[in-house]
Amino acid sequence: MFTHMINEKTKLKMLDLRDSEQLFGLTIGSKETLREWLQFIDYTKSVVDTQSFIQSTMKQFSENNGFQAGIWYEGNLAGVIGFHKIDWNNKSTSIGYWLGNDYVGLGLMTASVKAFVDYALKELMLNRVEIRAAVENKKSRAIPERLGFTEEGCVRQAEWLYDHFVDHVVYGILSGDWDENMSN
Amino acid sequence: MFTHMINEKTKLKMLDLRDSEQLFGLTIGSKETLREWLQFIDYTKSVVDTQSFIQSTMKQFSENNGFQAGIWYEGNLAGVIGFHKIDWNNKSTSIGYWLGNDYVGLGLMTASVKAFVDYALKELMLNRVEIRAAVENKKSRAIPERLGFTEEGCVRQAEWLYDHFVDHVVYGILSGDWDENMSN
Amino acid sequence: MFTHMINEKTKLKMLDLRDSEQLFGLTIGSKETLREWLQFIDYTKSVVDTQSFIQSTMKQFSENNGFQAGIWYEGNLAGVIGFHKIDWNNKSTSIGYWLGNDYVGLGLMTASVKAFVDYALKELMLNRVEIRAAVENKKSRAIPERLGFTEEGCVRQAEWLYDHFVDHVVYGILSGDWDENMSN
Amino acid sequence: MFTHMINEKTKLKMLDLRDSEQLFGLTIGSKETLREWLQFIDYTKSVVDTQSFIQSTMKQFSENNGFQAGIWYEGNLAGVIGFHKIDWNNKSTSIGYWLGNDYVGLGLMTASVKAFVDYALKELMLNRVEIRAAVENKKSRAIPERLGFTEEGCVRQAEWLYDHFVDHVVYGILSGDWDENMSN
Amino acid sequence: MFTHMINEKTKLKMLDLRDSEQLFGLTIGSKETLREWLQFIDYTKSVVDTQSFIQSTMKQFSENNGFQAGIWYEGNLAGVIGFHKIDWNNKSTSIGYWLGNDYVGLGLMTASVKAFVDYALKELMLNRVEIRAAVENKKSRAIPERLGFTEEGCVRQAEWLYDHFVDHVVYGILSGDWDENMSN
Amino acid sequence: MFTHMINEKTKLKMLDLRDSEQLFGLTIGSKETLREWLQFIDYTKSVVDTQSFIQSTMKQFSENNGFQAGIWYEGNLAGVIGFHKIDWNNKSTSIGYWLGNDYVGLGLMTASVKAFVDYALKELMLNRVEIRAAVENKKSRAIPERLGFTEEGCVRQAEWLYDHFVDHVVYGILSGDWDENMSN
Repeated sequence: MFTHMINEKTKLKMLDLRDSEQLFGLTIGSKETLREWLQFIDYTKSVVDTQSFIQSTMKQFSENNGFQAGIWYEGNLAGVIGFHKIDWNNKSTSIGYWLGNDYVGLGLMTASVKAFVDYALKELMLNRVEIRAAVENKKSRAIPERLGFTEEGCVRQAEWLYDHFVDHVVYGILSGDWDENMSN
Repeated sequence: MFTHMINEKTKLKMLDLRDSEQLFGLTIGSKETLREWLQFIDYTKSVVDTQSFIQSTMKQFSENNGFQAGIWYEGNLAGVIGFHKIDWNNKSTSIGYWLGNDYVGLGLMTASVKAFVDYALKELMLNRVEIRAAVENKKSRAIPERLGFTEEGCVRQAEWLYDHFVDHVVYGILSGDWDENMSN
Repeated sequence: MFTHMINEKTKLKMLDLRDSEQLFGLTIGSKETLREWLQFIDYTKSVVDTQSFIQSTMKQFSENNGFQAGIWYEGNLAGVIGFHKIDWNNKSTSIGYWLGNDYVGLGLMTASVKAFVDYALKELMLNRVEIRAAVENKKSRAIPERLGFTEEGCVRQAEWLYDHFVDHVVYGILSGDWDENMSN
Repeated sequence: MFTHMINEKTKLKMLDLRDSEQLFGLTIGSKETLREWLQFIDYTKSVVDTQSFIQSTMKQFSENNGFQAGIWYEGNLAGVIGFHKIDWNNKSTSIGYWLGNDYVGLGLMTASVKAFVDYALKELMLNRVEIRAAVENKKSRAIPERLGFTEEGCVRQAEWLYDHFVDHVVYGILSGDWDENMSN
Repeated sequence: MFTHMINEKTKLKMLDLRDSEQLFGLTIGSKETLREWLQFIDYTKSVVDTQSFIQSTMKQFSENNGFQAGIWYEGNLAGVIGFHKIDWNNKSTSIGYWLGNDYVGLGLMTASVKAFVDYALKELMLNRVEIRAAVENKKSRAIPERLGFTEEGCVRQAEWLYDHFVDHVVYGILSGDWDENMSN
Repeated sequence: MFTHMINEKTKLKMLDLRDSEQLFGLTIGSKETLREWLQFIDYTKSVVDTQSFIQSTMKQFSENNGFQAGIWYEGNLAGVIGFHKIDWNNKSTSIGYWLGNDYVGLGLMTASVKAFVDYALKELMLNRVEIRAAVENKKSRAIPERLGFTEEGCVRQAEWLYDHFVDHVVYGILSGDWDENMSN
């Protein structure tokens, strides 16, 4: 029922259980590409796993700890974007996201992340948004770089991916940076 | 972030904790009028009570059992509308609602209930929506009557209100009725 | 250990786990008849399902929300009667019941419902008892009619039964009605 | 609703919340006598404490772990008797009890404990019932002795009572003993 | 990380999940001997059962209700010793223990129980430690007897072991006894 | 009962509830110094708050998510060190610590952190240990620098401290680094 329009063709909507089939289809359809960087894809074996994921995101929302949204493009589910959690004490959050193969290159994710950062800094009144990406994951890193995030460091061997560790680049944007960006 | 536009001036948004102050203010501001039919008003003594209410509605949502929305008119919170619960087995739900004094007579509630019935029957694919109102509560009864609900019965002494029982009129609308209404 | 004698041959006892086998047997023995109006019968596939049911009724009791009793006739379990829940704020409750095939026509259920209504209005000091039955379920409807309940309305398509909706007749009796009935 | 008749004047009934006032009154009325051996009496300061106790006994029942009953004599609450817990694996339980001052000397407790032992060994099919009493608590010890329990040992300093330790005598009766007793 | 040295070759360590494999191996390796008196051995069918046991002991610790320790001898897990629970109100606890076949006769258990009693009476400031053993279990009974516990009674048919009941001897030691023992 | 000896004068012990008084005393005694970097100090108003903290650490342990230890120096509690959590999937953890005023400058923390890193990388078989410190907190930063951690980045405005944000330096050490360090 509730949506956030990004542009005429694109909107965000909080995930609910009725989206399970569509989200499972999207996940499976792009499995080979997504699993390169997202190990959870391999654990998504049936729509029941997707339902569990959505249920956990509804619980996250009900605990006032952020939410996960679907990105809809021309009426189809194109990807997922969400807050990992919200650290209200330190006025800080972090964002994660992925797109199905068919929706890459349309600018959907940059626009969606921009909407989330706006919401976090302007509506939730947070001070800091963080994005982490594997050093070699160029597509993922391009988003914060395009949106003016600052590269703040490199956490070595931060993640175990199937059979090896990957380093994470940490990007951060502060409320002040964002205002400045936007006014340019 | 997520909203449902009813018209240019009016939108619905799921309640979240940041709405607590505004909702508490609305409740207190119309206390004398609202308490005639809504006993919970008397239990709303500080913003903490309103926060507890909103927290319970977020839990309701996370249990896939419906949600409560605020009605915003020209940027101000005007009232509340929500599902009491959703009976998925029997494809049925019921709706409750109230408006602050300053927002009565603008057609906000009829439009909001219409949006909720549409959502329940068209998006959630339910079959039945029920509204109950005290027999003497003419303003509340006018809504389902205006929207083509059928009066199905009168539950005697259904509710204890401060110091006396009140009878409830039961209104119901079925998926088939609604389609017919809408096509007229 | 604890029982309520209805007459020399008939008694009520709160269900406990030791009744599982007997209750499962009764359910299965009358399966074809019962399933016409009670969809849960189809979900009772082994005694484990009956145990889960009984466990849930013990939890209901421990939450001060009513209980389920077995009806024993000449030492055999003949049926089940119970409160769906108790609405203490509005001093109201509702009752459900069923009998095994071999025990129909002996007046057991009318006597048992009478005992439950008495208990609800006289001991629990509630004000209202409700019984709902499918419009076509004549045997079930006969009970509240025989006991002087008032027909208060008809909730259309209230229940999804296998492959179709059924309408529910709502019967209610108030504390004052009951006193009057009894004194006649 | 559900009771167990011991004789014309005496019955047992599982405690429920409506008994709170009466039980609190009984506790307070015999406070000076009871607190000699029952330290919990000092923690019963208002009816809320009694409600908490009853709620905990309802939870005990719902966990299939025994229950607490009130002893009613000529319509008045005279005392409490209950299972501490049920050890289903080892087919064993233990019993505790107390009477209000006004009801001592009427044989109520011996009859009630007899009913409980009967229920445990004949209906619950347990094998062993244990009763423990402080060495100096002659009234309490008289009950198992009168009913043919065997004194099995003395647990030294088993209980801290206000400002000193007391030793516990352990009494046990087995299913075989009980049958033999009863046939004499 | 944390250990308690009993002597150069022997130490105690609270069990944690990394000990699961070793503990499962020890249990299975001595299965035939242990199952004579410990029925739980038969329920230990895979390392998952051992993990569940260890998880339950970590929960016990986190509830301030005692803990289970492994006995390590020359770097190998030799047995288990633990508190069943701690009764803080009555300043009392009880101890259970078992050894793998290869570690019997080395004095490990007497030393370990001595350490536990010391800890209970001197560090936890409890007043009483109890040990129960089946009447026929001579090896188990030898421990409290060697350490100066008093035999306080015999609980008849206290435990159901596969197909028969066994009687339990109750041993207790009080803080005063222990001081006296130690000074001799 | 269980301890880890660091040297003759210094040992680590998991915190338990009996340490509450001592830990509360240490916290309050160094309040003015500690609160410069640790905001939680201001929320420690009575020993009850310290008990809650210790209870939460016992829960952390029981969830296999790390633990908090006290640092004892010559028999007195000198400080606290613990794992924030353990990320078993990515074989990674992070460490936090603080010392009371009277115990600064004795090398206690460097030795304690060394013991924790050893335990994490050698016993828990993790791959990465992280330490974060405020940029201006020189004493805290000196520990990872002394132990050969790599400075990996600076998370801007990571923490809200009373009335301003502070930046965090991120230090990390990997299993391979540590082996190399130790062999030098």
